[in-house]
Amino acid sequence: MSKYLVLQTDFGLSDGAVSAMHGVAYTVSNEIVVQDLTHDIPPYDIWAASYRLLQTVSYWPKGTVFVSVVDPGVGSDRRSIVCKTKSGHFIITPDNGTLTHIAHFQGIDEVRVINEVVSRLPHSEESHTFHGRDIYAYNGARLACGEVSFNELGEIVSCETVEKLEIEKSSIKNGIISGNIDVLDIRFGSLWTNIPLSLVKENHIVHGDYLQVSIYHGTKRVYQNIVKFSKSFADVNIGEPLVYVNSLVNIGVAVNQDSFSRLYHIGTGIDWKMELRKAAKIIFE
Amino acid sequence: MSKYLVLQTDFGLSDGAVSAMHGVAYTVSNEIVVQDLTHDIPPYDIWAASYRLLQTVSYWPKGTVFVSVVDPGVGSDRRSIVCKTKSGHFIITPDNGTLTHIAHFQGIDEVRVINEVVSRLPHSEESHTFHGRDIYAYNGARLACGEVSFNELGEIVSCETVEKLEIEKSSIKNGIISGNIDVLDIRFGSLWTNIPLSLVKENHIVHGDYLQVSIYHGTKRVYQNIVKFSKSFADVNIGEPLVYVNSLVNIGVAVNQDSFSRLYHIGTGIDWKMELRKAAKIIFE
Amino acid sequence: MSKYLVLQTDFGLSDGAVSAMHGVAYTVSNEIVVQDLTHDIPPYDIWAASYRLLQTVSYWPKGTVFVSVVDPGVGSDRRSIVCKTKSGHFIITPDNGTLTHIAHFQGIDEVRVINEVVSRLPHSEESHTFHGRDIYAYNGARLACGEVSFNELGEIVSCETVEKLEIEKSSIKNGIISGNIDVLDIRFGSLWTNIPLSLVKENHIVHGDYLQVSIYHGTKRVYQNIVKFSKSFADVNIGEPLVYVNSLVNIGVAVNQDSFSRLYHIGTGIDWKMELRKAAKIIFE
Repeated sequence: MSKYLVLQTDFGLSDGAVSAMHGVAYTVSNEIVVQDLTHDIPPYDIWAASYRLLQTVSYWPKGTVFVSVVDPGVGSDRRSIVCKTKSGHFIITPDNGTLTHIAHFQGIDEVRVINEVVSRLPHSEESHTFHGRDIYAYNGARLACGEVSFNELGEIVSCETVEKLEIEKSSIKNGIISGNIDVLDIRFGSLWTNIPLSLVKENHIVHGDYLQVSIYHGTKRVYQNIVKFSKSFADVNIGEPLVYVNSLVNIGVAVNQDSFSRLYHIGTGIDWKMELRKAAKIIFE
Repeated sequence: MSKYLVLQTDFGLSDGAVSAMHGVAYTVSNEIVVQDLTHDIPPYDIWAASYRLLQTVSYWPKGTVFVSVVDPGVGSDRRSIVCKTKSGHFIITPDNGTLTHIAHFQGIDEVRVINEVVSRLPHSEESHTFHGRDIYAYNGARLACGEVSFNELGEIVSCETVEKLEIEKSSIKNGIISGNIDVLDIRFGSLWTNIPLSLVKENHIVHGDYLQVSIYHGTKRVYQNIVKFSKSFADVNIGEPLVYVNSLVNIGVAVNQDSFSRLYHIGTGIDWKMELRKAAKIIFE
Repeated sequence: MSKYLVLQTDFGLSDGAVSAMHGVAYTVSNEIVVQDLTHDIPPYDIWAASYRLLQTVSYWPKGTVFVSVVDPGVGSDRRSIVCKTKSGHFIITPDNGTLTHIAHFQGIDEVRVINEVVSRLPHSEESHTFHGRDIYAYNGARLACGEVSFNELGEIVSCETVEKLEIEKSSIKNGIISGNIDVLDIRFGSLWTNIPLSLVKENHIVHGDYLQVSIYHGTKRVYQNIVKFSKSFADVNIGEPLVYVNSLVNIGVAVNQDSFSRLYHIGTGIDWKMELRKAAKIIFE
């Protein structure tokens, strides 16, 4: 049975860093399969690292070990941790907020702290700046191949002690659904919110309905339009906006074959909010 | 024996989408090897997707399953199809023109239509926008590992019904070879035409001959020069243009260690034509 | 036991070239694992190719076969060679300087010349421009899977005949340590020198010391500052420069969470030198 180790970093693929991580993992064991989530997390962007884990982890076989290294605090006293998720996957990462979305939306069963002095690539003591290779890939491979068990990797600590970033919650008030614009679908320029389809359904909004979409940057409204809640991009004309259900079953907005983000200068993060309101009646002449 | 599944998309590698596809495939079977063609097809560029399959498919072991997802019509009534090529490979793709080059230059044996409602990742019904994960990677893995046979994947349809883009044919008239500039060698700026080496040979052009190269954008001639038909880049000086035989055994033009495309502002597609004429005699003083 | 083939090129990943190389390798053998070092070497940059091998090779299992194709002279009479390194790895590459760093810092045991006419992908004779696929990936796979032995790959030649780029040596004089700025940590903008930690230690410089860092472009001094020799990035404030030990146990300079290279317009290569001098005493008020 194959055992998977999946790596995520902000290192890019233009030098040898990621390949050295793969090499270390395969040196630990030639019975594992080493794969990549992405290595294009914007430098130091812990929020993005956390979100991309949410987008990906549950689609891999149970038991898969993920290593995520977006680590602005490398060499500080931030902890290295390994967690077991409720979905049956493992994640090894600096304890800096990278587990925020997984903890919130999928749940964590148990967390352990890795001893960076003992559990590291032999003869790597002189370099203190490449924990991705010397600690994370190394221990990820040991866990993936069964050389160490989850329990042996470190002392258990309370899940409550895990560092978390602030997460906005979606809500509804007076028929207006409010949420946060969490992340950009980079390649296509679509915007993904934290509003789950379930919240939309509860408010009797169905595919084909027209919604008033308002977007706020801080307190300033920067976009407002009537947009069709569409099953998929092909339901609207090329160049036309749509509200849709994204691959995480949350609400997104897009423009068919163009970039909503670029066209309307919309960003992502806790300063960017979206409101949805069902249009009672639209008369097309 | 290893069984290969090779993925191509226009999703990029900066988020978790492609890794989720890999994960779905490995969840179907841990006996397959999942690999990538490219995920950097320009968004919605079906022509490029079709061309990159031609460039790659036949170099993989027979029986390899390719999944190509450049799908501007996701959610429309465009079909999902699987084909068996004459070279003994399988390709699963939206039926939108992605099979154009393979069908034209290598040939297709049989095509079947996949039922998107029945044959999809369990519990993926709510998302209608990520067929790459929910339908294509999922069915690609099932076919690669043998969970379903080609015949079981769907009802057979005529190869004639497969959607195809317009393809220009190269030709010769009055000693002038005409062809289309099909695609850019992105990294090096060389231009690849649809003129096969065989057509050049039939007209008694051999390495070392000098050719008049004319390039037209629509009806306007935008480049003309005498260029040596070279065996390889090292046959000309750095910065000098050459005509050469590319890795698909078609005619290309390049500049040694520079970008022909950028230097002379030459693009690709059906508006860009090239003519080659053998220079009868060149006297170098 | 898995057998690894690791590919490096300057081809990028945006077309089908690298995937065709993978396919050729898997067609040779389905018992090998094909992996990537990087395909983002700047076009024709042999120095970078050489450096990235140094950064990576020794972290892979002994016996791993590396193929590096940065080949401005494809089709010239430059040789194709395979070497066995002192670390027990194999590298197949055009003989154009790609082995410079490995030969200098890790050592080469034996070199053999590959006959490009005999040892090439069957039926690939018409294309003279894609040796990466037709010669390098093909022979790399044959060596990795054991179809041919190292000895059978070609005639032995003296290690002295291997092409090498000029390498600067670090030195010390009057308490000033001098070195070259070899390469950029692309993603983070840090600069890596050829000054080994050992040279710094010999001169009784320890973590926490303050160093005068001077950077020269040719003969012109373009940067000078007092910088802390830090164990890791977290030892200085965000935005503050540091001297540190990089993942190859050489001296680097960086700015915590910013780009030293971009902030101070510092490049890499033989025109860029750095001097380090220990600050005798610094009084902070």
